[in-house]
Amino acid sequence: MTEIKQLSPQDEFTGFYLLKELDVRQTNATPPKDYFDIVLSDSSGQISAKYWDVSTADKETFFPMMLVKVRGIVQLYRERLQVKVTRIRKVTDEDNVSITDFIRSAPIRPVDLVHAIKQSMNSIQDEQIRQIVAYCVGKVEEKLMHYPAAKTHHHAYFAGLAYHMARMLELGDFICKQRPFLKPDYIKAGIILHDIAKPEEMVAQLGIVSEYSLQGKLIGHIAMASNWITEAAIHSGIPLDAECVLGLQHLVLSHHNLGEWGSPVQPQTAEAVALHHIDALDAKLQMVEDALDTTPETEPWTPMIRGLENKAIYKLGTN
Amino acid sequence: MTEIKQLSPQDEFTGFYLLKELDVRQTNATPPKDYFDIVLSDSSGQISAKYWDVSTADKETFFPMMLVKVRGIVQLYRERLQVKVTRIRKVTDEDNVSITDFIRSAPIRPVDLVHAIKQSMNSIQDEQIRQIVAYCVGKVEEKLMHYPAAKTHHHAYFAGLAYHMARMLELGDFICKQRPFLKPDYIKAGIILHDIAKPEEMVAQLGIVSEYSLQGKLIGHIAMASNWITEAAIHSGIPLDAECVLGLQHLVLSHHNLGEWGSPVQPQTAEAVALHHIDALDAKLQMVEDALDTTPETEPWTPMIRGLENKAIYKLGTN
Amino acid sequence: MTEIKQLSPQDEFTGFYLLKELDVRQTNATPPKDYFDIVLSDSSGQISAKYWDVSTADKETFFPMMLVKVRGIVQLYRERLQVKVTRIRKVTDEDNVSITDFIRSAPIRPVDLVHAIKQSMNSIQDEQIRQIVAYCVGKVEEKLMHYPAAKTHHHAYFAGLAYHMARMLELGDFICKQRPFLKPDYIKAGIILHDIAKPEEMVAQLGIVSEYSLQGKLIGHIAMASNWITEAAIHSGIPLDAECVLGLQHLVLSHHNLGEWGSPVQPQTAEAVALHHIDALDAKLQMVEDALDTTPETEPWTPMIRGLENKAIYKLGTN
Amino acid sequence: MTEIKQLSPQDEFTGFYLLKELDVRQTNATPPKDYFDIVLSDSSGQISAKYWDVSTADKETFFPMMLVKVRGIVQLYRERLQVKVTRIRKVTDEDNVSITDFIRSAPIRPVDLVHAIKQSMNSIQDEQIRQIVAYCVGKVEEKLMHYPAAKTHHHAYFAGLAYHMARMLELGDFICKQRPFLKPDYIKAGIILHDIAKPEEMVAQLGIVSEYSLQGKLIGHIAMASNWITEAAIHSGIPLDAECVLGLQHLVLSHHNLGEWGSPVQPQTAEAVALHHIDALDAKLQMVEDALDTTPETEPWTPMIRGLENKAIYKLGTN
Amino acid sequence: MTEIKQLSPQDEFTGFYLLKELDVRQTNATPPKDYFDIVLSDSSGQISAKYWDVSTADKETFFPMMLVKVRGIVQLYRERLQVKVTRIRKVTDEDNVSITDFIRSAPIRPVDLVHAIKQSMNSIQDEQIRQIVAYCVGKVEEKLMHYPAAKTHHHAYFAGLAYHMARMLELGDFICKQRPFLKPDYIKAGIILHDIAKPEEMVAQLGIVSEYSLQGKLIGHIAMASNWITEAAIHSGIPLDAECVLGLQHLVLSHHNLGEWGSPVQPQTAEAVALHHIDALDAKLQMVEDALDTTPETEPWTPMIRGLENKAIYKLGTN
Amino acid sequence: MTEIKQLSPQDEFTGFYLLKELDVRQTNATPPKDYFDIVLSDSSGQISAKYWDVSTADKETFFPMMLVKVRGIVQLYRERLQVKVTRIRKVTDEDNVSITDFIRSAPIRPVDLVHAIKQSMNSIQDEQIRQIVAYCVGKVEEKLMHYPAAKTHHHAYFAGLAYHMARMLELGDFICKQRPFLKPDYIKAGIILHDIAKPEEMVAQLGIVSEYSLQGKLIGHIAMASNWITEAAIHSGIPLDAECVLGLQHLVLSHHNLGEWGSPVQPQTAEAVALHHIDALDAKLQMVEDALDTTPETEPWTPMIRGLENKAIYKLGTN
Repeated sequence: MTEIKQLSPQDEFTGFYLLKELDVRQTNATPPKDYFDIVLSDSSGQISAKYWDVSTADKETFFPMMLVKVRGIVQLYRERLQVKVTRIRKVTDEDNVSITDFIRSAPIRPVDLVHAIKQSMNSIQDEQIRQIVAYCVGKVEEKLMHYPAAKTHHHAYFAGLAYHMARMLELGDFICKQRPFLKPDYIKAGIILHDIAKPEEMVAQLGIVSEYSLQGKLIGHIAMASNWITEAAIHSGIPLDAECVLGLQHLVLSHHNLGEWGSPVQPQTAEAVALHHIDALDAKLQMVEDALDTTPETEPWTPMIRGLENKAIYKLGTN
Repeated sequence: MTEIKQLSPQDEFTGFYLLKELDVRQTNATPPKDYFDIVLSDSSGQISAKYWDVSTADKETFFPMMLVKVRGIVQLYRERLQVKVTRIRKVTDEDNVSITDFIRSAPIRPVDLVHAIKQSMNSIQDEQIRQIVAYCVGKVEEKLMHYPAAKTHHHAYFAGLAYHMARMLELGDFICKQRPFLKPDYIKAGIILHDIAKPEEMVAQLGIVSEYSLQGKLIGHIAMASNWITEAAIHSGIPLDAECVLGLQHLVLSHHNLGEWGSPVQPQTAEAVALHHIDALDAKLQMVEDALDTTPETEPWTPMIRGLENKAIYKLGTN
Repeated sequence: MTEIKQLSPQDEFTGFYLLKELDVRQTNATPPKDYFDIVLSDSSGQISAKYWDVSTADKETFFPMMLVKVRGIVQLYRERLQVKVTRIRKVTDEDNVSITDFIRSAPIRPVDLVHAIKQSMNSIQDEQIRQIVAYCVGKVEEKLMHYPAAKTHHHAYFAGLAYHMARMLELGDFICKQRPFLKPDYIKAGIILHDIAKPEEMVAQLGIVSEYSLQGKLIGHIAMASNWITEAAIHSGIPLDAECVLGLQHLVLSHHNLGEWGSPVQPQTAEAVALHHIDALDAKLQMVEDALDTTPETEPWTPMIRGLENKAIYKLGTN
Repeated sequence: MTEIKQLSPQDEFTGFYLLKELDVRQTNATPPKDYFDIVLSDSSGQISAKYWDVSTADKETFFPMMLVKVRGIVQLYRERLQVKVTRIRKVTDEDNVSITDFIRSAPIRPVDLVHAIKQSMNSIQDEQIRQIVAYCVGKVEEKLMHYPAAKTHHHAYFAGLAYHMARMLELGDFICKQRPFLKPDYIKAGIILHDIAKPEEMVAQLGIVSEYSLQGKLIGHIAMASNWITEAAIHSGIPLDAECVLGLQHLVLSHHNLGEWGSPVQPQTAEAVALHHIDALDAKLQMVEDALDTTPETEPWTPMIRGLENKAIYKLGTN
Repeated sequence: MTEIKQLSPQDEFTGFYLLKELDVRQTNATPPKDYFDIVLSDSSGQISAKYWDVSTADKETFFPMMLVKVRGIVQLYRERLQVKVTRIRKVTDEDNVSITDFIRSAPIRPVDLVHAIKQSMNSIQDEQIRQIVAYCVGKVEEKLMHYPAAKTHHHAYFAGLAYHMARMLELGDFICKQRPFLKPDYIKAGIILHDIAKPEEMVAQLGIVSEYSLQGKLIGHIAMASNWITEAAIHSGIPLDAECVLGLQHLVLSHHNLGEWGSPVQPQTAEAVALHHIDALDAKLQMVEDALDTTPETEPWTPMIRGLENKAIYKLGTN
Repeated sequence: MTEIKQLSPQDEFTGFYLLKELDVRQTNATPPKDYFDIVLSDSSGQISAKYWDVSTADKETFFPMMLVKVRGIVQLYRERLQVKVTRIRKVTDEDNVSITDFIRSAPIRPVDLVHAIKQSMNSIQDEQIRQIVAYCVGKVEEKLMHYPAAKTHHHAYFAGLAYHMARMLELGDFICKQRPFLKPDYIKAGIILHDIAKPEEMVAQLGIVSEYSLQGKLIGHIAMASNWITEAAIHSGIPLDAECVLGLQHLVLSHHNLGEWGSPVQPQTAEAVALHHIDALDAKLQMVEDALDTTPETEPWTPMIRGLENKAIYKLGTN
């Protein structure tokens, strides 16, 4: 079965794919005819597709986020690849395929990621800090198993958020060893809490964000996480003027570093400075990794990456 | 008794003033001598002063924020007025002066301002909104009687914050009548809550801010107010996902309009757009009024005003 | 008859509409066929439409800004509504419809708006100021009855400019009462003059701006209004160095507040500061109102609004 | 007689100088003593000075912009040169010195500069353009003989404005020859008019700007020049909608290129694009020339120049 | 034969053109048909075109940058002109046309431009400077005969780069005469070297840039030219710490003036300030000239020009 | 002996210090008297000092960067500590103190740092990359033993540059293990080369930068390093178009990430993205560490740190 990342112009192929997006549209013909404007995806990437011969039955058969078997031809349209679908049908039990095989996922199993995060959380020595972190993690625990870290920017796939946390925790441990003036409890807590409200800021399914939630738009994950810490402290009987409440709220509020990037205050503790840069380093390198992973091996350049000043990345050694 | 605003070069004068700032410094002489670097103030303004003949006793007698009787001469130093103090003593009971006569205050009595604010609060129809507002007002009620609205920008005087709120509430009522699509409950609540955490963000005495608090620096009054709404909802048994919690938190979080001005989200309700502009209009006109009030009548220009693009204001009609 | 704002996918409808835009285009067919690319509008909003079966006669019958009777079907095209026109004809006298019923208008009659503006103008006490205002109003008096205030930003409809002025005058009166240091003559004059050159800056018909004029592009309404004040003073025998000439030119030149928003000088009189903020408050709230008015009631969000940091507005209470 | 530019630390010298600035100040001594805080200047530059032994008579003898004979010693104070004045007296007729010998001037005689400008003006072919230019030049003709082009930025000396114009006219002629699509009449007129209102924007004496005028602050030279063109057209009977009025106003309004640099519109004619860049090239190179002229020959670097991104200029060949 | 610049809607025409771009695409028909998406160009401009009836043979006959004879009809598509090609064939020897007749070129012959540049280079008095310039010119000498100065911004045609240099050298000579403090050797060298690496930064054919080179993207022409100067010095036995190496590298590194425009250092020699402004003046006026040249004479406005704040240029006198 | 960091107002103390800065100034007295304006430093920090009774001999005895024994009193001047020196003498051999005890140094011995850097350099597998790195390191090897990494921003002390490199190399190793798509050779080389030209960009002694060099100002360390790579390649016989030359020059040119921060190109290889963020993380955390190290333990806040958005850092746990 052909991976989407490997398709080239003129290829004829058959395979199972996820119907990531599907719109019914109409041609300009008279009378106009219905056709499907489709995005097919698998774990290697995604591609646009058109299905021109749509019957009335088809319109009641196919819906987004469904698995399908497709036969198609690859064409070049406005310098981008596009599939002309010649046959399409729903997957049946006999096909023996599972949806999780067709989505991009973190390279480590969600259960292992969440386990690592919890282990790190449980190693926090300060009881109040640990309680607050545990309460907040508890609010989104189920979603941590599959939520992406962002809509498109970075870690935009199944369990991407937990993967981002786990990687940052490794880096945080290293930095704490290099720089003993940093307090590991705050570093761990800051890493776990900084994006903890993202699962409520975005609406996602199978690692794919469809939109921002109402809360996400009007409050944003930064202020939401701050509010959750207030809620956690009240729930755990921790005084609201305890230093750890202040320290943790400062970490989440300042982690975007600048007002124009969404932080109402700028980092003013050693741990807050560290958190911002650990987050930046991990997110930016992940953008590079994500782009490399979905670029065909023969291509010397990835597509342009918005979060990297709109630059494409060149692969040294491919020249 | 001469008002500070009326002092001119070469004036010799005697009067009662507030010792707003006092530092002991040393001249370059050999051996160096101690002198006082002073800021005198009254309700009309403030002025720098030097007291050259400081005795050891003086250093144990005079402290900032104390009322004093001063005899002095006005001199011009680097194009600014400065008083050379020739005599100074503490005020005694017989002087029959009260500190509140020497500080700049809102032009309306604090008790009346707070009364107006509470009346407006009580006219909020939605019970949940009213409860949240009341809880937050309750947290700072005593300080509302005297806190300024800012350190220097605008309304930087006794009860300036309450005055700012009261004026905005009048303007809010007018705008709600002009534009019926605005919900008066949210407008009132937004006006009362938008700066409600300022008394905890700043440390002030007699309407004069000495510094920002630790909370003020690390959290800021915008996120603090959002946290208080969470706290108020929990305390009042209002579900945290009630729309009014969302709507009120959005109002306080967005009222600075842009990220670079400290708002983590931008206004996305009609009331939030209105709140930002009512706040801006009142604050900017107050900066003008404050500058005009402390500029001698014969001066055609006020000093430069930082919040108005660093421009001075020209008084039409004085040319 | 169906209002455009109420159309939903799959609706079949018949009605009278304004042919706001009309282009003849060609399909990709061989040989290509002509079709009409249309924008239909009525007082509730506007919608794209296609008419596929265009005859040679049709091309000589239909032109922009004409009233037509249309039968059509509503389709969804790239997530936006679009009408497929099945029949179209010109309106006849028997249809008994008037073009003014099909355009968005200020909610108050133009004649009443202009009357209110003139009343305010006549209440200006200073004779020179009043003469200058009257001269400038005289230059565009006829256009004031129907010109919009902007191309798309705000008040972009029939008599929108006069409506903007009238509303600002109400707000100006309120502010002058709140803040007695403001000179009402300048506030009134500034409000009437600040956008007075807009009818010469833009070319508009029935409240719809088709383009900027040559003057509008090369001089802009801000400098044009300043020039007009010079012209008015010469015409009225007022010395060019009279303070009111200076004060009024300063008001119009500074009302956009910052250089990057088009003002060559920044506000430096109390009245100029007030004018900018009265203008901003009215314009921004009108953007909200305009967006709410053209959003179907069942939609919780308006479209994105460029003048409001590109944010959409959420309607509290619709969740 | 020693030129100021040649003074070095420890020099003792006697000479005639202009008392460019003079303030009476007081020492910290008890009782404080009066002293003069002075800026001395000649045509080669300027230097700070102190005169410590000020008598009551001195205070009634010496005033700014007066010629004096000074004996002094050069000292180093905070890494800058400063003169300690040991003797000072007013110049008498017998000294046989003239104030114009002590001020920085354009390197060409004002009468020749103004003659060149007028010659260029008279070579304008289009009668209407020539009339407008002539009217505007007429308004400031006397001041053109001595006004500087700016307060400190560039050409900040006697007849600096006329010098700037004359140099730009030479460059304009060259560019018009290189690029025949440019209309020489507009280039000449634009060069003469672009800063024509500066003599009314600033208050200057002997080429030294003391402050901005009220008009200068509230209107600015850009809009003033636009207003003057309106006035000129009315005075000369040229219709206000004549293309040359539009073209000339566009030139002056757009010559700062960007809104944040003070232009309410951006260049939109070929001549306006040319004018902006001819102005920039001449002004920036003059900043370099002015800095080189007042830097001692042995210094490899000039002081920092604000208009050149705050950079100092290195003299190649001095290393 | 019709020039592209003169084509109007509905014109039927026959002529020789350059096939500047050609893509094979497919219609939406079922089955889809191939068609050519084409850009035709000649020395007067360029235009989009479609060729609907593509045979298999056609797809092997036509390629970009080939000369063709075309018959076609001009249509209006989305407010832009577009040609419907009815016949197309390759040019044969008998047609007696040469590709250089079909491309935009500098108005002066390349050989004359390069001659003028070399003459200027040879007039450099300082031997080291001359050697370095000669070495760098030698690296791209062949490409100087035809390379454009930019992809689209300015001088984007055959020999545009040499034309830009030659024009700047004329202007540089004039400025050096006006301002004797400038060192002509550095001005000449700076002008010749500032864009000398552009032929290696971009990939171009017949004056048309197809893309940036790998070096161009990763190093950029500014740092490339600096590296070349190092290389030239080593090659010519000039010490790397010679002042001319420093002075020349500073000129190329600083010529974009600001960091955000690509210069890692800002101009800090008189010659570097001059170079930046000579470059800016020539480039901006060329943008105007290029736009005027490709705008039909009857059009009063050119298209919008990106390098001129996205403004269109109005032709005075066409109103 | 009292460390400078521990001095408090009114302390009388005796100790050995480095005379980091020394200026001879004059009092305002008549006649004025000479005094020394001094900065004393030791490894714990620095402090201003005045020495009022300067003899002629003193002026020939004391010079900057000399070790002295000082007796003094600590005073408060404008809210900052300042020492009044009562006795001062040069250090003699008997004092048995060494200058290196009085300067801030990296916490690891320079010889160990340089050893670690070389070890890392020698572990580079690609011979060409290793040769280029070795050549560049060779140019500044001696200075690597003591140069700071910056004037004030971060690592501004003895061997600070080598310390910065060594720390980054540790972090680079960790990141390469986390992210196998990164090429360790380029990461190591990029870390060693990114600031390799700083010892030629700045003039420093004992870890204290006195000024930028001429090269530093006109070329900057970024372009200098790029030029050095060209030089290294020529010297080592590596073709200038070898990919490693391109890759290494890209790393140094892009490591400041944005044009406004001095990089003429933006990161476009995975290693360049990593290098920028490893550099940022290490530099910013070092700023925090440096500030914490020189802040008295009892102070809850460090001074404001320019490189951290001008924020002070709060020490959690000190409240």
